[in-house]
Amino acid sequence: MRATVMRDQRLVVADLPDPVPGPGQVLVQTLACGICGSDLHVLQHAERMVEAARDAGAPGFLMDLTRDVVMGHEFCAEILEFGPGTERRLKSGQRVCSMPTVLHAGGASTVGYSNDFPGGYGERMLLSEALLLPVPNGLATEAAALTEPLAVGEHAVVKSRLERTDAPVVIGCGPVGLAVIAALRRRGIEPIVASDFSPARRALARRTGAHVAVDPAQESAFVRLAREAAGRSAVAFECVGVPGMLEHLCREAPPRARIVVAGVCMEEDRLHPFVPITKELQLVFVLAYAPEEFAGTLRAIAEGEIDTAPLVTGKVGVDGVAGAFEALAKPERHAKILVEPWRAGRLS
Amino acid sequence: MRATVMRDQRLVVADLPDPVPGPGQVLVQTLACGICGSDLHVLQHAERMVEAARDAGAPGFLMDLTRDVVMGHEFCAEILEFGPGTERRLKSGQRVCSMPTVLHAGGASTVGYSNDFPGGYGERMLLSEALLLPVPNGLATEAAALTEPLAVGEHAVVKSRLERTDAPVVIGCGPVGLAVIAALRRRGIEPIVASDFSPARRALARRTGAHVAVDPAQESAFVRLAREAAGRSAVAFECVGVPGMLEHLCREAPPRARIVVAGVCMEEDRLHPFVPITKELQLVFVLAYAPEEFAGTLRAIAEGEIDTAPLVTGKVGVDGVAGAFEALAKPERHAKILVEPWRAGRLS
Repeated sequence: MRATVMRDQRLVVADLPDPVPGPGQVLVQTLACGICGSDLHVLQHAERMVEAARDAGAPGFLMDLTRDVVMGHEFCAEILEFGPGTERRLKSGQRVCSMPTVLHAGGASTVGYSNDFPGGYGERMLLSEALLLPVPNGLATEAAALTEPLAVGEHAVVKSRLERTDAPVVIGCGPVGLAVIAALRRRGIEPIVASDFSPARRALARRTGAHVAVDPAQESAFVRLAREAAGRSAVAFECVGVPGMLEHLCREAPPRARIVVAGVCMEEDRLHPFVPITKELQLVFVLAYAPEEFAGTLRAIAEGEIDTAPLVTGKVGVDGVAGAFEALAKPERHAKILVEPWRAGRLS
Repeated sequence: MRATVMRDQRLVVADLPDPVPGPGQVLVQTLACGICGSDLHVLQHAERMVEAARDAGAPGFLMDLTRDVVMGHEFCAEILEFGPGTERRLKSGQRVCSMPTVLHAGGASTVGYSNDFPGGYGERMLLSEALLLPVPNGLATEAAALTEPLAVGEHAVVKSRLERTDAPVVIGCGPVGLAVIAALRRRGIEPIVASDFSPARRALARRTGAHVAVDPAQESAFVRLAREAAGRSAVAFECVGVPGMLEHLCREAPPRARIVVAGVCMEEDRLHPFVPITKELQLVFVLAYAPEEFAGTLRAIAEGEIDTAPLVTGKVGVDGVAGAFEALAKPERHAKILVEPWRAGRLS
């Protein structure tokens, strides 16, 4: 199969043998797969990241970097073939989504961050039959492929335990921030105040459901929030994930604010604990989603509760992935770029 | 009046003019005043601390270090004289406690961390009449003087929102940790697992109400907790307050633990956010207490719900404060030393 492969810290197009489904597994054809910010980070800092994962006891990111890795964990696919011991309640040709986890004799691996289970930047993947969710007829493949990143926002909002006396502020309007905005909007929460340095991302934030999007160079999101939602408690969603953001938000936030850390910072950070102590802040670290949140997100997309149209800003074929990574490093142009590995094509 | 004064980063005994009560204020005689770990920190790092307070927007710690400061904010005192505009519902000679806050035309100052409002290491203080709490007859002065540090533990436990499915672990058994243990014990919570490197402090922890006190050099408190309270969620109280503790606890804690940060770390700290992210930890930073928690703590002490006897390990007069600071820098011997500024006397 054709795939974009991470090899020696570069992305190259290669022909790989088709994977062979083991017990309980299904061979699928990738229809579309989003490029995640974590993938950009892994390409740049793969060794450090594997080290951080080992260090943090997160086995889902352990890869042998001397061997090929096919990344891509935000996908919609089509069933091709069933492995041994499968129940086959779905049929060949059925479109499916799945959390990017595959179960095997040795435990569980993350599809797209594994040497053995190629992700959606390749034409074919192995998934666990037990985790497959059928994509409803009539739902566009590219909308279904957004289930994974949107589930991240859903989870962050669930974990925030937002009450009526709280008011949210979303810091950073990349894919994670947009997913949080979509999850807030779906619940009818208002106002949603978002913040990003990039005018393009502020526009996307508004299209995704933010009522207000501020430029932090001009105005603090917390100051704006205090004006838009006077008397309510600030709940900030940190969706940037770079060193310095925690300290920055602790300094900017009002007393007794809750900060939900949804941005994944993989580097060492510095913090003056005296700042959150004197304000009695709470830091709520979140990651990924529960299975029911993933399934609920696919359902919400299918039922039109989340408008996915603004989110996809580009599509590429297998030969366009490297260029898409470069484009995504700058925030001005793109939010989510989908890879369609069954075709050729680069960003125009 | 005689007082132990912080002057040029040293503690000296000096004669100062008696303070004069302003509107709404009361002149009191200090009967007993505990030495707090924060005072040790201020003496050592006064400039850095004032800087940190300015930086964190905590006006309660702003002092001019070129001028004298009389520290001491954990006190029991006796009313001597009423200032103008007071209601005088309590009588002269009445023993009182108060939060260490005094209200004045310019706002509020912290008694004991102010150039203008001397604390309990001196014979006399000014307090706000509105904040005075009478000490019930029959309650020992030295027990009443523990209201402030014990209220810190009460507040931390209130903020932890401990549920029946949670189990607490107290990291560090200095005065803050012991106060947390007392507040947990008072609520009938069990088991209470505590942890400290010092055998003397582990013994104090057990006398204060901990069911188990482990030596972290021998056994992780979290491992022990998992054995003692299987199936319940870990809620850790960080009561050490030195750099590195947050990272350490994030690494030691099990997934989805809540860490209540009650230790006051005033220096820069480092943290790998990826560790709390992968475990979805929560950090709840807490400080001080609400007025009702302070009053409730005095009531609980008076009603015998908290056994204060183990906590006071020494008493000194005004000339013994400097020696007591030195003794408190080592954990082996002392927990809380009370200053009785009306008398002479050093630690034996």
